[in-house]
Amino acid sequence: MSLTIGIDVGGTKVAAGVVDERGKVVEKLRRPTPSSDPVQTVNTIGEVVTELCSRHVVDAVGLGVAGFVDEARACVGFAPNLGWRDVPVKKAVEDRLGIPVLVENDANATVWAETRFGAARGEGCVILLTVGTGIGCGIVIGGELYRGQWGMGGEPGHYRVVPDGRMCGCGNRGCWEQYASGNALMAEAREFARRSPEAATRLLQLGRGRPEGISGPEITRAAAEGDPAALRCFEIVGSWLGDGMADLAAILDPGCFVIGGGVSEAGGLLLDPARTSFENSLPGRGHRVPARILLAELGPDAGFVGAADLARR
Amino acid sequence: MSLTIGIDVGGTKVAAGVVDERGKVVEKLRRPTPSSDPVQTVNTIGEVVTELCSRHVVDAVGLGVAGFVDEARACVGFAPNLGWRDVPVKKAVEDRLGIPVLVENDANATVWAETRFGAARGEGCVILLTVGTGIGCGIVIGGELYRGQWGMGGEPGHYRVVPDGRMCGCGNRGCWEQYASGNALMAEAREFARRSPEAATRLLQLGRGRPEGISGPEITRAAAEGDPAALRCFEIVGSWLGDGMADLAAILDPGCFVIGGGVSEAGGLLLDPARTSFENSLPGRGHRVPARILLAELGPDAGFVGAADLARR
Repeated sequence: MSLTIGIDVGGTKVAAGVVDERGKVVEKLRRPTPSSDPVQTVNTIGEVVTELCSRHVVDAVGLGVAGFVDEARACVGFAPNLGWRDVPVKKAVEDRLGIPVLVENDANATVWAETRFGAARGEGCVILLTVGTGIGCGIVIGGELYRGQWGMGGEPGHYRVVPDGRMCGCGNRGCWEQYASGNALMAEAREFARRSPEAATRLLQLGRGRPEGISGPEITRAAAEGDPAALRCFEIVGSWLGDGMADLAAILDPGCFVIGGGVSEAGGLLLDPARTSFENSLPGRGHRVPARILLAELGPDAGFVGAADLARR
Repeated sequence: MSLTIGIDVGGTKVAAGVVDERGKVVEKLRRPTPSSDPVQTVNTIGEVVTELCSRHVVDAVGLGVAGFVDEARACVGFAPNLGWRDVPVKKAVEDRLGIPVLVENDANATVWAETRFGAARGEGCVILLTVGTGIGCGIVIGGELYRGQWGMGGEPGHYRVVPDGRMCGCGNRGCWEQYASGNALMAEAREFARRSPEAATRLLQLGRGRPEGISGPEITRAAAEGDPAALRCFEIVGSWLGDGMADLAAILDPGCFVIGGGVSEAGGLLLDPARTSFENSLPGRGHRVPARILLAELGPDAGFVGAADLARR
């Protein structure tokens, strides 16, 4: 059986794995991302590949990078979390290792993995949403990755859900990811604790007495215990998530949504309110088959599993 | 050269044409849509085809219908403006005429015509928006019509641009077509005339003294004359149109938008403010190739030209 290596190159870590044709992870390892210098990151990638190749015979390497990748899937144009601009990473890694390399956006690699081997197996039209700090997205249409005309498709985190709404790091206001992300969840909980400390005693306790001490894991823990304030925060954020999925369904009518990312580890706490508001907001409901809303199955390995599989094709 | 017939079946008229392989219209004719009874409409379609076939040798018939068409492109599931539900129109017309028939949604037929023969010739990823009473849409991805998993894709007129916004006929609130359509333009102008009659004298004059007398053609005429109130209405509606296109570009990154429909006949009056707000709202502007925004070229013939060409394939 043919083996390939997939590497998920993120802002904090490089996660790599040797993957077989069925998506099974034969071996995996991870390293911290050394710095914002692409040369050092390419060195780390080279070391990881060399180490894995010393124990496995592999045919190709796929890199999933948190940034915009050109049409030739060779060069990373802009990767804000890595600090990269116009890095010809395919050539750099191929020159060093003498093995074919494919470069893909990390969310694209993730949706590919979930469609081939995970929650959306067998689906032809899939929208993956990774709900973490912001909202990442990968789209499969007709069984193929969808990139848009210029490789900039699949960024619904920055479509506008509230005119003149909350400021976003992208420079616009009212972007979806300001309402339906981990950051939004944290902002809701802290605001709740500031305005109604008497109703947020459990959240404040977990945050060591300060609203600023409340982060995602504390909110999830309190909600799992049944704390009404924490549950309300998930309800608000989940509701924005579901409303946005209804908008995406109006435009694209996918067969399913796959929800991943850190906040999705809260499971039903996030997905139950999301499903309710999706069903209530979907245009034409009652006259159509609604998209299924599924939890991602492959967890943090999905990025390198997808990159490895894309490198094989 | 092979000829096919295309027929655009709308709520008020049946527009038909004989079309050659290059999209040239050899002959065209139109009839009023008889009633909401599909049997009578099928009769009218039959008469039109029989008449055209008496003068031309045609290979197939394509129907563009203002409604939802099933995956087999045979049956119209729901056509609110025609009053149809579950009409097997392909079989009905084929049985009557003995000629192959293909059924397609009318906006899909229109985007197909504009992509093959009109404003978007040679483009692979196109979003057509018909700005009329509401917002119609057809999407071409990878050179093929995009329908979504269940044939319900391409309805951005009902994505939500304002939470708890204006009521929409679909049952939701804040749908895009309540802000960026001919109805929205008319509502703006009438509201303007009600609240500031002294600033809307030209609009009121064209509306024979009453706000309710002001419709699209009056607003376009006043704006073309340079009337500030009418220009302001186009600016507001065009701005919503451009903001929504920026949202669609965040999600789909098309190569171009093609703007058709009745309101697009105002040309730059609508498109200039739309382009300005698109450029100001596009996420990642400065780091990407922005989609071009083009006026439709084929006018009201586009529906039957596209249906005819799809029937040929």
